[in-house]
Amino acid sequence: MKVLIINPNSDPEMTAAILRTARKFSRGRFEVDAKSTPGAQGFIETYEDQALSAPGMIKLLKENEKKYDAFIVACHSDPHLDVLKEITTKPVVGIGEASMKLATMLGHRFSVLTDNPHSIPNKEVQARTYHLEGLLASVRAPEKTSGGGEMEMYGKAAKTAVEKDGAEVLVLGCAGLTGMDKKLCGKLDVPILDGVVCALFLAVGFAEAGISTSKVRRYDPKG
Amino acid sequence: MKVLIINPNSDPEMTAAILRTARKFSRGRFEVDAKSTPGAQGFIETYEDQALSAPGMIKLLKENEKKYDAFIVACHSDPHLDVLKEITTKPVVGIGEASMKLATMLGHRFSVLTDNPHSIPNKEVQARTYHLEGLLASVRAPEKTSGGGEMEMYGKAAKTAVEKDGAEVLVLGCAGLTGMDKKLCGKLDVPILDGVVCALFLAVGFAEAGISTSKVRRYDPKG
Amino acid sequence: MKVLIINPNSDPEMTAAILRTARKFSRGRFEVDAKSTPGAQGFIETYEDQALSAPGMIKLLKENEKKYDAFIVACHSDPHLDVLKEITTKPVVGIGEASMKLATMLGHRFSVLTDNPHSIPNKEVQARTYHLEGLLASVRAPEKTSGGGEMEMYGKAAKTAVEKDGAEVLVLGCAGLTGMDKKLCGKLDVPILDGVVCALFLAVGFAEAGISTSKVRRYDPKG
Amino acid sequence: MKVLIINPNSDPEMTAAILRTARKFSRGRFEVDAKSTPGAQGFIETYEDQALSAPGMIKLLKENEKKYDAFIVACHSDPHLDVLKEITTKPVVGIGEASMKLATMLGHRFSVLTDNPHSIPNKEVQARTYHLEGLLASVRAPEKTSGGGEMEMYGKAAKTAVEKDGAEVLVLGCAGLTGMDKKLCGKLDVPILDGVVCALFLAVGFAEAGISTSKVRRYDPKG
Amino acid sequence: MKVLIINPNSDPEMTAAILRTARKFSRGRFEVDAKSTPGAQGFIETYEDQALSAPGMIKLLKENEKKYDAFIVACHSDPHLDVLKEITTKPVVGIGEASMKLATMLGHRFSVLTDNPHSIPNKEVQARTYHLEGLLASVRAPEKTSGGGEMEMYGKAAKTAVEKDGAEVLVLGCAGLTGMDKKLCGKLDVPILDGVVCALFLAVGFAEAGISTSKVRRYDPKG
Amino acid sequence: MKVLIINPNSDPEMTAAILRTARKFSRGRFEVDAKSTPGAQGFIETYEDQALSAPGMIKLLKENEKKYDAFIVACHSDPHLDVLKEITTKPVVGIGEASMKLATMLGHRFSVLTDNPHSIPNKEVQARTYHLEGLLASVRAPEKTSGGGEMEMYGKAAKTAVEKDGAEVLVLGCAGLTGMDKKLCGKLDVPILDGVVCALFLAVGFAEAGISTSKVRRYDPKG
Repeated sequence: MKVLIINPNSDPEMTAAILRTARKFSRGRFEVDAKSTPGAQGFIETYEDQALSAPGMIKLLKENEKKYDAFIVACHSDPHLDVLKEITTKPVVGIGEASMKLATMLGHRFSVLTDNPHSIPNKEVQARTYHLEGLLASVRAPEKTSGGGEMEMYGKAAKTAVEKDGAEVLVLGCAGLTGMDKKLCGKLDVPILDGVVCALFLAVGFAEAGISTSKVRRYDPKG
Repeated sequence: MKVLIINPNSDPEMTAAILRTARKFSRGRFEVDAKSTPGAQGFIETYEDQALSAPGMIKLLKENEKKYDAFIVACHSDPHLDVLKEITTKPVVGIGEASMKLATMLGHRFSVLTDNPHSIPNKEVQARTYHLEGLLASVRAPEKTSGGGEMEMYGKAAKTAVEKDGAEVLVLGCAGLTGMDKKLCGKLDVPILDGVVCALFLAVGFAEAGISTSKVRRYDPKG
Repeated sequence: MKVLIINPNSDPEMTAAILRTARKFSRGRFEVDAKSTPGAQGFIETYEDQALSAPGMIKLLKENEKKYDAFIVACHSDPHLDVLKEITTKPVVGIGEASMKLATMLGHRFSVLTDNPHSIPNKEVQARTYHLEGLLASVRAPEKTSGGGEMEMYGKAAKTAVEKDGAEVLVLGCAGLTGMDKKLCGKLDVPILDGVVCALFLAVGFAEAGISTSKVRRYDPKG
Repeated sequence: MKVLIINPNSDPEMTAAILRTARKFSRGRFEVDAKSTPGAQGFIETYEDQALSAPGMIKLLKENEKKYDAFIVACHSDPHLDVLKEITTKPVVGIGEASMKLATMLGHRFSVLTDNPHSIPNKEVQARTYHLEGLLASVRAPEKTSGGGEMEMYGKAAKTAVEKDGAEVLVLGCAGLTGMDKKLCGKLDVPILDGVVCALFLAVGFAEAGISTSKVRRYDPKG
Repeated sequence: MKVLIINPNSDPEMTAAILRTARKFSRGRFEVDAKSTPGAQGFIETYEDQALSAPGMIKLLKENEKKYDAFIVACHSDPHLDVLKEITTKPVVGIGEASMKLATMLGHRFSVLTDNPHSIPNKEVQARTYHLEGLLASVRAPEKTSGGGEMEMYGKAAKTAVEKDGAEVLVLGCAGLTGMDKKLCGKLDVPILDGVVCALFLAVGFAEAGISTSKVRRYDPKG
Repeated sequence: MKVLIINPNSDPEMTAAILRTARKFSRGRFEVDAKSTPGAQGFIETYEDQALSAPGMIKLLKENEKKYDAFIVACHSDPHLDVLKEITTKPVVGIGEASMKLATMLGHRFSVLTDNPHSIPNKEVQARTYHLEGLLASVRAPEKTSGGGEMEMYGKAAKTAVEKDGAEVLVLGCAGLTGMDKKLCGKLDVPILDGVVCALFLAVGFAEAGISTSKVRRYDPKG
């Protein structure tokens, strides 16, 4: 069982961090690799950034399709997830879709922690795309004015989500936050989902079960 | 890694069939057992049947909580799933919730195949409980008048779901149908989800990742 | 016309308080009795508490079915309401369903006053079950830190619901609060609904009109 | 206890039929009168017809406010229900709102029987106004081409609603159909709701309980 | 191309202000007139006020139908918009519907600025009527206690909508606020929509394109 | 006033047809040009086709931003509409968003006519993206088996939408169908919307009114 994680941006450090999380989770039970997307921006924040990742992501998938059993899109906005689901018969899982859908199985409502206020409407749109708007408690970004180091600011945002917005589960809303679940966890009594981990056990599960994207209509590559 | 599947009814044959599916999927990667619920009805169809399973299911979970890493409720209506999520700190997955939520990751809309028309409103209610009503194409039961053997009748219902209702993914809506995915699959070009398999890789995934039900508010057993 | 109120818990004092409210409202226009549920918890807070009420509630209904014209479930979470609707051909009304649905006829949005924060997600889930999530302004529990006696704390929660959350109608979200509508009313200019009263005139109305639960599909006891 | 039924049209025969249904239900337990609306059309079908009923309905309510304890709007589209709720402190119930909301307490989904296809979109809009769109199975009008007398045509429409659209409860979607529930009932195994009866026991119940429209914001007559 | 703006109230000053905005926008590209509604209230705040505008509005439209190519209802609550759409074959646009629907094309969510808290529930109901409840960030009225002149109070309400409620677009929620967009605009970095302008280019656009209200079923004046 | 229409595919014939429709509508009141997208597919059917249009569309917009007052995306799936709204401060209108939102102002529900069944789920997803799922009657593609020439097949699909699905307005769901509204119109009594025309008067209207995409958060190009 081999999984390829596609990092939609071109930052090798983020790719390495994602791979560390993935291998720490796999512990040799399955193989996992990660690749940065050639030609993509170093960080994906805007709609334009997302659009520019498409050619490289398509290329990566097509070149590696035979070598892997399942694929993961490791940017929490799930850019071009529909394209990748369409062009391969193997399972493709986005870390945004995986983490937000699994969050709904663990508590009443979930909040997404994201890196800046620009992403708040985008996360709300994404939650609605997955029919999760009624289960989303809030999207929270660290407030620069709340003081303290980065981890403290995220901790405060997380606490507000749980105590004020009614979240019972938290989702890390950016691949760049991978690993932060362990750091925040000690201070909060709620599950914190890292999309990389969620996507991994879903992708492997689908592949082991022999199920993948339906090719009837929506994801039929022949149109 | 050890998983216990709780069959909410008391039928040992259905429990055995569920276990066969589970072990065929696990192939030794993790241990899995299945138990029938003492004091439950032989088959769960009505609300009263469901209510009568509660004491036995609670007893089963409490007696086995230390011996297993995760638990599965193997009746597609997910009876008492909220109770079990509440009383243990270990992951609990229902085959209904698992199969319907995963179905949404594989195609535009899904249909549920169920054993009789009585279950149609119940499946609709259940889909709404999970905020999936906008992704449910239909619930279809075999029509006795459509002729042929059982498998043929289910095949016809499935075909109608795909061609007329717009389903791109099918979900087996009863634990008693476990294994039917393999039989129907040859004739239909869509993924068919067996909840037992779906719940297994979710339950194992949650346990491996060290995440479980939030104990803040809704599932706090202290009330 | 005779109505039986089933208190899903086993607390005789709460049963007596419910019956006082009921008889004060009936003023002899119809007969009304109330019974505690044998084998149930003294107070229903958790999912497990709810599950444990089922056998006693079913027994109460079956034993008394012929003697009464309509039945009421007098716990605001409406535990096992579906079961009771299924097993009798006579009208069964839950105080939660009754009070929340009638609240929508009296103002723009309603808030539910509940006894503690643990119930907030549960009330939200219940409102959605009845397709009322778009009409629910908020669920408010008294804040211990707000100071004053119990009635004062409820009064403050109620005021916040009306002034900050946009509620125009209030619903008492626990059978144990029965009678509190009269006490709060003087201080607030909004209708406050006691589910026991609401359920009574609905149950009597259904029975007088000769209409009851549909036995087609969902509530068909033969499955 | 005295209730005034306001028939928003000016047809004395329809008013008489409505009053017959009302008195048959009240059997002397409360007093009930009915009045046609001066200046209104003989039958209300279009938006313009509805608009023209307003002055007469407002006049009727204002002239009779002191003499009655509760008011009913007896046209199933509930024309000007918001106006009447606003201008009096006494309970006002519309037969459309009453019958559709009570229908949701008796089965999975309800269908509305209406007199002609022109009303289908209007009933759908009305169901959504009351947040009931997810509980509406269908709106059915008799099909002239289905043959037979009027009652037969309605019977066929009703049967289609139950068997094909999934309705478990039926609602008579026009005050002019009052009394038809008794005639259709023998042939169908589902509850059929006559809004006149539903509105009556709600209006009387509200009045007996001393609860009425909230005067905070939405229905505040001072604006 | 000639457009008639119908002001549903009888205040000639408001009609004049509306016409000034309209002519400033048209700059001679099309002709535009505005008329107050005979027999209507001077200001429309309550449901009763709205009801009383109907006869005059119908009369205005019928008398002027041949002289104009399109009609606008210039009260943000869109009173009797359905009636006018029904009785003419020419396009009719409400400033509420126009401004709120166009707002959704310019940013994530919009807020409505209204003149007093009484209108908040009414605007929420109106947004839902147009299926926009999921796109409405909030309805905000100036808070008398926030101090400053009228424009300052509106400015504060607008700022709260953008910064706290997540609005990215603002809608002036009352025809009486026409022209305020220019005054507020300098201080806020978001588009502010004046319904009079929005309705104008929609009405003219529909008329130029030769498209108007469908006369099948819902708006068929023959019923 | 100058508008640039961007055809997201590279087919010069379709671009020419779109421009013919546009100029026929403008009749010299404003200038309008149309350009094909360099590097794009000849026809856009799949998600991959859409992804490949992005670089060329971004280039077209950036090169022409100063020369035009407003921009139109002329593929009914509105590919990369969010990107273009983000990267310019001038109004950008998609023909899909324009036609579907305007359709809701002209009748109860609308249906979309599309070229093949593959597009049905995609149109449903798109309608939901715009919060229009409750106003979409159906998506209909011509059935090859229905016989007759192309126009006849579309005519039959349209008739089914109106008579069976409850549509009161039709939307041409593909830029390639531009002009078909005139041909179908004679045979159907409902408005038929051509997105090119709808987008034109919206884009010109926004530009004349001086309003454009909000640059707060979601469409802020600086992220």
